[in-house]
Amino acid sequence: MHTRTVFFISDGTGITAETFGNAILAQFDIKPRHVRLPFIDTEDKAHQAVRRINHTAELEGKKPIVFTTLVNMSVLRIIQENCQGMLLDMFGTFIRPLEGELGIKSLHRVGRFADVSLSKEYTDRIEAINFSLDHDDGQSHRDLSGADVILVGVSRSGKTPTSLYLAMQCGLKVANYPLIPEDFERKQLPPALEPHRKKIFGLTILPERLSQIRNERRPGSKYADLANCRHEVAEAEAMMRRSGIRWLSTTTKSIEEIATTILQEVRPERLVY
Amino acid sequence: MHTRTVFFISDGTGITAETFGNAILAQFDIKPRHVRLPFIDTEDKAHQAVRRINHTAELEGKKPIVFTTLVNMSVLRIIQENCQGMLLDMFGTFIRPLEGELGIKSLHRVGRFADVSLSKEYTDRIEAINFSLDHDDGQSHRDLSGADVILVGVSRSGKTPTSLYLAMQCGLKVANYPLIPEDFERKQLPPALEPHRKKIFGLTILPERLSQIRNERRPGSKYADLANCRHEVAEAEAMMRRSGIRWLSTTTKSIEEIATTILQEVRPERLVY
Repeated sequence: MHTRTVFFISDGTGITAETFGNAILAQFDIKPRHVRLPFIDTEDKAHQAVRRINHTAELEGKKPIVFTTLVNMSVLRIIQENCQGMLLDMFGTFIRPLEGELGIKSLHRVGRFADVSLSKEYTDRIEAINFSLDHDDGQSHRDLSGADVILVGVSRSGKTPTSLYLAMQCGLKVANYPLIPEDFERKQLPPALEPHRKKIFGLTILPERLSQIRNERRPGSKYADLANCRHEVAEAEAMMRRSGIRWLSTTTKSIEEIATTILQEVRPERLVY
Repeated sequence: MHTRTVFFISDGTGITAETFGNAILAQFDIKPRHVRLPFIDTEDKAHQAVRRINHTAELEGKKPIVFTTLVNMSVLRIIQENCQGMLLDMFGTFIRPLEGELGIKSLHRVGRFADVSLSKEYTDRIEAINFSLDHDDGQSHRDLSGADVILVGVSRSGKTPTSLYLAMQCGLKVANYPLIPEDFERKQLPPALEPHRKKIFGLTILPERLSQIRNERRPGSKYADLANCRHEVAEAEAMMRRSGIRWLSTTTKSIEEIATTILQEVRPERLVY
């Protein structure tokens, strides 16, 4: 049972408020109830939010925690002046000192994208997602010179989620190729990849974990058999070592950790920073 | 040209630091250079980070902005005491008052996932990504009762990126189905979807924008022709209206805004809050 409610209030989606609030809350041994209140962009909605927070405060007999990323000052003021929660104003706290250091006023602008159809950054991101889907699991060799990163590894080593994450969150075009028995026999990378070696990054995984994952997909198959997984992983790692490809083990890593390490190693040119 | 550098320093991936820092910086009319320094989890690495920041401060003649999400206090202290940047300690600023309100100490724990292979939340998320890929673009009718959300709409209305976003970021199983001429002739939703009507959400788009997007994919085709796009969109909207399906127009919305609205409307049971 939860004993405390946390609200995330934003004029936009509330995703920043919730991402950051969750990172803060992960530092405490509590399991609060989460309520995200997005698109709070009018004074009416601000009053509604206040009523919800105050109702919760009465029910629970404890101050709700209220994370806000509000840029509309009249909305923020209504919540500050009326809500019985503990208010953590994530924007104001940092924007005011930054105005001092930068010597300019902040814009009070909601969200990253005003109209996405006019944003080059946004259309590039959608294009990156489409590219990564079209080049998932070795489906296509077309336009590999347009790829920012090429992932290789045995089936179920984590290539697909990592590719989609890099496309979705970083706007990178990521192709991924499974390393298969034919490659191991030839003892060479798939030939189509050779010209793009600088962009290749390998994923590997402990055979025991791989066998577990594959067994969920195809129980009792040779594909999932531990001896077979050991063989494939050993061959794949030997090939990556021979080819001088950078690689990491995904066994205990989250998609975010894998993606961050790849960005550090490959440093794609397209990334703006 | 950038005139100022912003550093994001974290013991983990630095994604929280950068997401939040970017939201703050979007409030200012500046284009700073971004440097993410992830995995700063030892005193040695802290000293290296300080050297980089101070070097930049000298080169640019301005204080770099330094956002930190550090939970290791000895690492944070080294940066606080030695760096010549403007330090914005995103964790400490909020964690200390929260310790007071909650009456407990914080854990100083790095990252959300210690060992992802042991985390149910994490394996559910990977399963959601696989489900959403297998059910992309009407590929499969299998196990639709296991879906959390079913998206429908004409081709290129934004179904695929939205499905993948909801899977990746919210751990939701999302199927998506194109509405095609056969459906319009029958004047009914695809029959396989009927039993799951409560989970269905529709995406639509302005015909002019749709034609533009389709023309990038297949220039000059009937598929991309404006008259055809107008016809498809009108039919799809009429069908959604007849079927009593909730829907929104994606024309000017980001994936995050679309996803947030869907979550508000469909309220999937699996979502923990």
